[in-house]
Formats: sequence, structure tokens, C-alpha cells
Amino acid sequence: MTGFDLFTPINNEMIIVEERLIHSIDTELPELNQAATHLVKAGGKRLRPAFTLLVAKLFADSVETVIPMAVALELTHMATLVHDDVIDNSRLRRGQPTVKNEWGNRISIYSGNYVFAKSLCLVAGYQRSDLLKVLADASMRICEGEIRQMLSCYNIQQGMKDYLRRIERKTALLISVSCQLGAMISQASEGQITALKRYGYYLGMAFQITDDILDFVADEEILGKPVGSDIRQGVITLPAIYALKYGNQREQLGKLLSSPELCTKEAEAIIALITETDGMDYAYHVSNRFADKARQQLDLLPDVPVKKSLYDIASFISGREY
Amino acid sequence: MTGFDLFTPINNEMIIVEERLIHSIDTELPELNQAATHLVKAGGKRLRPAFTLLVAKLFADSVETVIPMAVALELTHMATLVHDDVIDNSRLRRGQPTVKNEWGNRISIYSGNYVFAKSLCLVAGYQRSDLLKVLADASMRICEGEIRQMLSCYNIQQGMKDYLRRIERKTALLISVSCQLGAMISQASEGQITALKRYGYYLGMAFQITDDILDFVADEEILGKPVGSDIRQGVITLPAIYALKYGNQREQLGKLLSSPELCTKEAEAIIALITETDGMDYAYHVSNRFADKARQQLDLLPDVPVKKSLYDIASFISGREY
Repeated sequence: MTGFDLFTPINNEMIIVEERLIHSIDTELPELNQAATHLVKAGGKRLRPAFTLLVAKLFADSVETVIPMAVALELTHMATLVHDDVIDNSRLRRGQPTVKNEWGNRISIYSGNYVFAKSLCLVAGYQRSDLLKVLADASMRICEGEIRQMLSCYNIQQGMKDYLRRIERKTALLISVSCQLGAMISQASEGQITALKRYGYYLGMAFQITDDILDFVADEEILGKPVGSDIRQGVITLPAIYALKYGNQREQLGKLLSSPELCTKEAEAIIALITETDGMDYAYHVSNRFADKARQQLDLLPDVPVKKSLYDIASFISGREY
Repeated sequence: MTGFDLFTPINNEMIIVEERLIHSIDTELPELNQAATHLVKAGGKRLRPAFTLLVAKLFADSVETVIPMAVALELTHMATLVHDDVIDNSRLRRGQPTVKNEWGNRISIYSGNYVFAKSLCLVAGYQRSDLLKVLADASMRICEGEIRQMLSCYNIQQGMKDYLRRIERKTALLISVSCQLGAMISQASEGQITALKRYGYYLGMAFQITDDILDFVADEEILGKPVGSDIRQGVITLPAIYALKYGNQREQLGKLLSSPELCTKEAEAIIALITETDGMDYAYHVSNRFADKARQQLDLLPDVPVKKSLYDIASFISGREY
């Protein structure tokens, strides 16, 4: 089974999401249009809209009504990506040149603001301020997470708790909100909404931990970015935190990881020092625990075929080969 | 009469707005807290909340209900300023170091996103999606305006129409929306809402034109930024457009204004070339025309004392000495 198969129940709706994403960029300004369209067309896993749609399918066969929200969530996600690329000075994302690389900082910042504003217009269309509140709260906390990640670079004192809080904001929150909003629009009960919000949260945690593991091992073709790009930028993830605490050569590793210069120059040596500890296995284990918790949330939900997809996605995400 | 006197009818409410602005920054993250608080405390004319409050006063003595919106509009405005400072690489704003100068690009970008998200949370509190729609649409168009301004730098081919479209997005739109939203929350009639939206629009146009005139003459103490800072950045405003078209030395001026290097090195010579034409008088005249149009919108509105303030503000704004 591939990750793609898991989205079969919503294949048709995802095609519509893709079209609407492209059409959502409707500015007359050529530079903004090109940059924002590039951002949308650069693709990605479209995880957030997929979850909104899958969750909606739990409650109804026809999920037309959640499509604008699914599009809005992907636009919100893109707005954070384009700003991150400015901040990280990234050349590539998903194997394609970033907006920053092609159009520079200015257009990138404004393109991010534009697609976020566009996302709000779509949310406004629902005429429900409870939906806006969820998204606005999440956006605020995502900003905090981004600053937290920035400040934690090259910091070898950070622990597991710092890491978890960071990835919660960076990834889990918006996936959680994608599930929650899908449920809210689908007239789910309060209990079901909470369960799905938690499902998304745990799944997002599992997803980011696996993503961080993959950064040590997957090759550029799979990841769309060079191996070890976290290390090179001083982003200390779970395997590194483990190795800094329990590894035999933790002192040497600490010296390397706390120096921006050595993180770039000695990235391969750092990766070797981390992968020879049990850090990857440990991270894999933590990711699995979150995936277990995600699956547990599904008990309360209607027994319809799409429930199995949500279940399998949790297993697939934490079980990605490394 | 000073500009300050014109806001007398809402003095008490403006004090509450100021307090709420400070309290709206409630993140636990020290860096974000400091940067966003600096941004709020750096002050400013608070024009946007003032208009929301004044407009509300047309319809009711107690305007408590519009205060969160007034705060939200100032936060939205600040979000654009902090991003602009990153893009323009500005050291000072209103005579104070910018967030960019003190905390760098990364914190600046995220602080902007944070205060904008905070603004949305306040708007969500109204549980009215029509209000969100107005703000989201405006935010999108403001992004377009910012990109337009960026692309028009050093472009000596631009005409009056380009300039007007740019300042509409850059300034008039958010002031227009501030008046419109104040009216919408105050249960004004459709006709009154439209009149106030237009009032804000024309007033915003007059305001930006006068601001652009002041950049040629006011000293650093009044403006909080160095004289000629537009010229130095290649921002071609109305007096310059006039001088490029009708000035005796338009060819020489064109050569200077189209060169980023000369705009910095020869800023004083450029200012002299422009101020010796009728460009300033012409801009002053255009600003007055917009102020006239603003005042005309007030005919439809209830005859209460605050109406005179709105009237006088239009006169004051276009009549600032230069």
C-alpha cells in the first residue's frame, strides 16, 4: 500500500481542491500571480485538505460543502511555507525552486500574506465565526512555534519537551485544525469534533517525527530537499536530542551541533554520530506511540468505510521506512 | 486647532484602545512578546481606530462594542508596517528603531503574522462573517498595493493613475474599511455605510498625498523619518510625477530618479528639482479635491456633534502646512 492509496475515498474531491487552489489566485498583478501560482503548483502532499475531506466523509457521502475550507487550509499552510523559505533562505522545496529563490524576499513575503488573506475570504464564505476563531487561534500559535524553532537552533540544551512543543505548533496544530474544521462543518457532535481534533493532533505529531527521521536518511529525490538539511540549519530534532543525551560521543556531538559553522561543514559526520546511536529507533518508537493514540480516537466515530482509511493513514505515517 | 483636538469626542475610548492594544500581545514567548509590544508601543497616529470610533459615535453615544474592531484595525495596520520595514530595510519608524532593526528579519516577519492573526481573533469575536469578509478582501488588495509600490520604484514612466491606484491600496483602503466597519457594527443603514466607506476612501487618499508632500519638506522631528526618504528609496510620488511631466529640467530629473544609486547620492538635488516646479502645489490641490469629496459624503449622516469632527478632520488632513 502506498500513501496515495489511502486517499482513494476522496480522489475525486482532491481533483476539485487542486483546481480551486489554482483558481484561488486571481490577482491582476502579473508578478504576484506568477509567484502565488508557482507556490500552488509546486505541489505537496495536500495532507491538510485531504484530512478535512476524509473527516467530512465520515458524516456524509457528499462533501462538497467542505471543499472551500479544504482549499483555505492548504492556502494557510502555503503562506507559512513561503515565509519560512524567506527566513531559512531556502533554495529548494519539494525539489522545485522556492518563490524566494525565483522572486526574492519582497514578493515572497507579500505572496504569503496574499494567500493567507485569500484563505480568510474562503473561510468568511461559511458565515460562521466559530470556524474563523479556530483558524485564527491556530495561526497565532503557529507563529509562536515558528519563532520557537528559530530560537532553538544550535541549542544543545533543549530536551524532548521543547522538541514536542515545537513540532506541535509547527505541524500538529494545523493538521488537528484541518480535522476539527472538517468535523465542525459536517455537523459532527461535540464529542466527535474533539475526537477528530485529537486524532489530527496525534497524527500530526507522528507525521513530523517521521519527517524528522527521514531527514537523516532519505535521499534528495524522495524528500525534494538534500539529506541532513535540518542539521545544516541547526535544527535539532528527536534523534539528535536522544544522541546528545545518551550517545557515547555526546560531548563531541554537542560541540558540533552548537556551532553554525560546523553544522554546515561537518553535517555528514554529525549524521553519522547520530545514526550510530539508538536515536532513530527511539524517535520511531515515539512516532508509533502518537500514531497509536491517533487510532484510539477513532473509536467514537461512525463505522463507515472511510474510518478505515483514517486508521490506516495513522499506521502508514508512523511506519514509513527509514 | 491641532490634529489632536479633532479626536476629542473619542478621547476616553482611545485610551481604552491603547490599553487593549498592549494587552492584545499575550504570548508567553519572550522574544515575540518584546518585539510585538515594541511595535505597539512605538505609537503612531492611531488613525484607523479613531475613525472606527468616530463613525460609531455618529450612531450612538456609547461605542464600547466597536472597540475590539478598532484594536483589530490598528493591529492589521501594524502587521503591514512591520513587514514593510523588513522589505524596505528601514532603520527607523516614527523616530524609533524598527522591529527589523532591533530583532532582525525573522522575528519581524513572524511578529507581523502574529499581530494579524490576533486581529482576526478579535474580529471573530463579533460572530459576524460579513465583517471578516470586508477585512479579508481589503488585506488581499493591500498586498497587491504593496507589490505595486515595490515594482514602481525608480520607474519614471508611471503616471498619475498609477500613483493613485497605489496609494488607494496602500492607505485609503484600510481607512475606508475602518469607517465602513465602524458603521456596520453600529447598525447604520446601507446608504450610510456606503457614504462612510467613501468618506474613509477619499480621506485616506487626501491623507496619503499630504504625507507624500511632507516627505519633501517636513523635518525628521515632525515626521519621525528623514526628509526625502521616499526619494532615497526610489518611491515616486505625486510632486515628482508632476515635475517629471511638466518641470523645466524633466530630462535631468528623469535620469536621477531612474537610478537607485543617484536617488541615494543626489537626493537633495532631486528634492530641489522637484520643489522648484509647481508639483507641490499641484499635489496639494489634488489632496484638497479628495478632502472635498470626503466632506460631501457626510450629507447623508445624522446631524450629531461628531459629524463636525469628521468634517474638520478632512479639512485638517488636506490642509497640513508644508
